[in-house]
Amino acid sequence: MKEFAIGIDLGGTNTRIALINRKGEILSFEEFPTHPDQQGESVLREVSLQINAILKKLKCPKENVGGIGLGCAGILSPQKGILYFSPNLPALSNLPIGKLLVKEAGLKTLLENDANAAALGEHWLGAGKGINNIILVTLGTGIGSGIILNGQIWHGANGFAGEFGHTTLFPDGIPCKCGKKGCVEVYCSAPAIVRFARKKLEEGNNSSLRDEGRPLTSRIIFEHAANGDKLSLDVFRQAGTYLGIALSNVFNLLDLEIAILGGKVSEAGDFILKPVREKVKRMAISSPYYHPQVLKAKLGDNAGVLGAARLVFKNAEC
Amino acid sequence: MKEFAIGIDLGGTNTRIALINRKGEILSFEEFPTHPDQQGESVLREVSLQINAILKKLKCPKENVGGIGLGCAGILSPQKGILYFSPNLPALSNLPIGKLLVKEAGLKTLLENDANAAALGEHWLGAGKGINNIILVTLGTGIGSGIILNGQIWHGANGFAGEFGHTTLFPDGIPCKCGKKGCVEVYCSAPAIVRFARKKLEEGNNSSLRDEGRPLTSRIIFEHAANGDKLSLDVFRQAGTYLGIALSNVFNLLDLEIAILGGKVSEAGDFILKPVREKVKRMAISSPYYHPQVLKAKLGDNAGVLGAARLVFKNAEC
Repeated sequence: MKEFAIGIDLGGTNTRIALINRKGEILSFEEFPTHPDQQGESVLREVSLQINAILKKLKCPKENVGGIGLGCAGILSPQKGILYFSPNLPALSNLPIGKLLVKEAGLKTLLENDANAAALGEHWLGAGKGINNIILVTLGTGIGSGIILNGQIWHGANGFAGEFGHTTLFPDGIPCKCGKKGCVEVYCSAPAIVRFARKKLEEGNNSSLRDEGRPLTSRIIFEHAANGDKLSLDVFRQAGTYLGIALSNVFNLLDLEIAILGGKVSEAGDFILKPVREKVKRMAISSPYYHPQVLKAKLGDNAGVLGAARLVFKNAEC
Repeated sequence: MKEFAIGIDLGGTNTRIALINRKGEILSFEEFPTHPDQQGESVLREVSLQINAILKKLKCPKENVGGIGLGCAGILSPQKGILYFSPNLPALSNLPIGKLLVKEAGLKTLLENDANAAALGEHWLGAGKGINNIILVTLGTGIGSGIILNGQIWHGANGFAGEFGHTTLFPDGIPCKCGKKGCVEVYCSAPAIVRFARKKLEEGNNSSLRDEGRPLTSRIIFEHAANGDKLSLDVFRQAGTYLGIALSNVFNLLDLEIAILGGKVSEAGDFILKPVREKVKRMAISSPYYHPQVLKAKLGDNAGVLGAARLVFKNAEC
């Protein structure tokens, strides 16, 4: 049983690499920009160089490291260690990342979907600690999700499970970049919140957002909501209501114990959590007997690296 | 390892009881009307009498029977053997059915949701044989579903999983008897098919249904579809399209291998299966890599009793 693991969260914008021990303590954390235009192999070489630098800095011999856990957006096979398709890192598509990192870094590498890794992190040390049936939803530019059943990530038959963001909320709804219509992602992501706000402004509603000089983001709309701006509050209520409907579907299908909301939109706290909870309470069929809970994620940006490290600690071969 | 099990499918209209061996051969099958107005204990006493009659007829001593598997509609706890709420058999609500049947019949009794039992039956000997990740959907007056993950029924945290029929298809849709709006059940069940047909008739569309003397049922509409009636064909296409959207959500969330359609509406075969398959092909996010299949159930009305018996055979204590 080796004491350390490398947890990596390989995002389209930034890559986070951490050295983590079995208690879940982060001993070293590096964040650097990902260069999505680089060749896939170069991206992995850079990751490998950073790992070596971290180990050197901490004087941690590679023999004490069980392996690398790597969380990455996209459609991938954890079993085969292949990333089939990554929307944010097209250069990595169809690469045998697992094998390449073993070669580059000399450490066993376990590949995982980034939302699954975050779910595992929150299950290990965050809002889902001690709870075995969970969906974690990351509300950001896109919407990812990781499902934990009986304490294990549910990968599905082929590793494609957890596409909650591309379940359909409105069959004839707004087109999604995935090619379908009315996906949850189009109604509950950060861009959706900005779109809702713009629409309400265009409709002539009064709002402090009219005096906002910066280009609108969900973060800025949250600030205005926190200052009591009705339009901004309404926008979060709208997104939360939609999210509540979609999460009720998950609860009704799977009878999970909790949903954990992460990602930048979840930072709006009760502005988004409250309408979600209201909807779930009304729509979960188990409600008379059991109330599924909706919680805010606890680990922030660290969920991904922690969950990725957890993968290594849970793997008997590491 | 006892050679036989009693499989029961306790429905609101009829109760089916079968003696089944480990190969899945049905040695005796009895079907009789359920009397939903009877007291719960009386319903179970009648079941017990029928079991004794079957065993006597076949000269099968009780010692050779591992137990009773009982599938029943409603919200129940398989662990506790309690049926909390049954829409069709209100007299049985909140009864400790498991214990009562042990007392009445002298056999260990395992309680299961009827759709879960049917899913287990199809997984054992039907359309899902050899396939480990399945949703079975029964399309009847209501819509039930049973989910099999890694070859096991997925009960959820509290035994309430599988309420596919009450996932939301249209958030602002037609009210459902469950109290919510726009449930799958309101758009894909047998009554939905009749409603779609009536609406199209009211709109003045041409159809052989206009000369139909019998009160409309999904079965009669199927007959007209089979004779080439365009309106009837359109109605199944409409229901199938809706079902395809809802099933795509399940595939995108869980990455299952197949969906099996059972219940009386599924008897319409390709009229309903084809539009479902078309939608799933277009909407399943895994489509470029993996095509989830939509199949017709194979065991018909026997799925429930076979699955219920399978419960007994799979239980180490039986």
